Amino acid sequence: MAEVGWEHCIKDLKGVVLDMCGVLYDSGKGGGVPIPGSIEAVKRIKASDLKLRFCTNETQATRGRFVAKLQKLGFDISVSEVFSPAPAALSILVQRGLRPHLLVHDDVLPEFDEVDKSNPNCVVIGDAADNFSYQNLNDAFRVLIGLEKPILFSLGRGRYYKETDGLKLDVGVFMKALEYACDIEAEVVGKPAKMFFLSALADMGVEPHEALMIGDDLVNDVGGAQDCGMKALQVRTGKYRTE
Amino acid sequence: MAEVGWEHCIKDLKGVVLDMCGVLYDSGKGGGVPIPGSIEAVKRIKASDLKLRFCTNETQATRGRFVAKLQKLGFDISVSEVFSPAPAALSILVQRGLRPHLLVHDDVLPEFDEVDKSNPNCVVIGDAADNFSYQNLNDAFRVLIGLEKPILFSLGRGRYYKETDGLKLDVGVFMKALEYACDIEAEVVGKPAKMFFLSALADMGVEPHEALMIGDDLVNDVGGAQDCGMKALQVRTGKYRTE
Repeated sequence: MAEVGWEHCIKDLKGVVLDMCGVLYDSGKGGGVPIPGSIEAVKRIKASDLKLRFCTNETQATRGRFVAKLQKLGFDISVSEVFSPAPAALSILVQRGLRPHLLVHDDVLPEFDEVDKSNPNCVVIGDAADNFSYQNLNDAFRVLIGLEKPILFSLGRGRYYKETDGLKLDVGVFMKALEYACDIEAEVVGKPAKMFFLSALADMGVEPHEALMIGDDLVNDVGGAQDCGMKALQVRTGKYRTE
Repeated sequence: MAEVGWEHCIKDLKGVVLDMCGVLYDSGKGGGVPIPGSIEAVKRIKASDLKLRFCTNETQATRGRFVAKLQKLGFDISVSEVFSPAPAALSILVQRGLRPHLLVHDDVLPEFDEVDKSNPNCVVIGDAADNFSYQNLNDAFRVLIGLEKPILFSLGRGRYYKETDGLKLDVGVFMKALEYACDIEAEVVGKPAKMFFLSALADMGVEPHEALMIGDDLVNDVGGAQDCGMKALQVRTGKYRTE
């Protein structure tokens, strides 16, 4: 993160929102690796007068296990500082009385333990990785096409992300697939949905124009934050490509 | 097919183009089953003065094996009467000197035996069914994203089709997925591409306005044929749904 000169961008600001994967660490087998300088950067923001929250579209683990992984990598971070799509989706499902068919990563399933999943009347997809088999996609499709008014929630709309062994397709790609199959539009939970950024800002007690988003994704981090009236900054780590 | 009253539509016509899956038969385990009346309908068209060709987006088998399956089901049909996307794609690849990375059904691979597949500079996807694993989609994505100008050929753009055990996601869904991942537009080979219908018409020596397309897909069969100036008729078998 040193090369982006973020220190110059935080004048007059009251809060910072950090993306995680591609900014703090590169994900991959064995939990991934921290990006040089990022552990120190988090420490310095926390030592300053700035408030700090983390907004991630990570849905390959429960928030608790995800935060534990980051702590193990050396980051000073706690669950209450992290906003991730699965808990946000759960509260929407409960509010609207929806019973989901889940197509998500096995490790994020516990986030949905408390919701009734019998006789599903909506589909929730996350970054299911290898669970995005033809069979599983077809099962989700059949649930949707069997509903009078199909409801699809997508935990993020990213195209791809970077793991230590290369680029990987993200949930947005499978959202588009199911949208096309059923001729519907998904409801996105997570970045770049406005609601998601606003809940992190509300938690800090900071107005959008007083906050800076730092991420590696031009659409989901930078674009999403700017749509909320936040300042935003793209780092050249993670999935950043010069094109 | 009896219920659509196709006999009334063929006055003044010189040629008929038939879709196959969902019109002649429902696909499924063990080769599928003929749709009642369809074997007899093909016989009657052949016994008339009308020319007849078959246009299918079937890419789960070589054209030869596919036709053998239909013959076994009882249809009077030969390879030279059938237009399918894989042979059409092969001739495009050869003409343009392209080396494909293939994400197709194992049984259609022999159609591409003669083309150089080393160091691929394009991707071809067909109705790969269970071969649409996350790993295989990711491999195709990495080939595309690594090209300066990604070229994706999709053998059809169907949303879903009906097998004897229910609806199945078709190749178009995975075309949309890769289009979104790479921010590109695929070149469609097969229905509803104009070129595909025109080649069948040319083979019959029949003008578009003298020909009738009969299919179960409103976009790929009916829409595609009408865009070429053909008459078209949707049957209520196959994937037809009242909505």
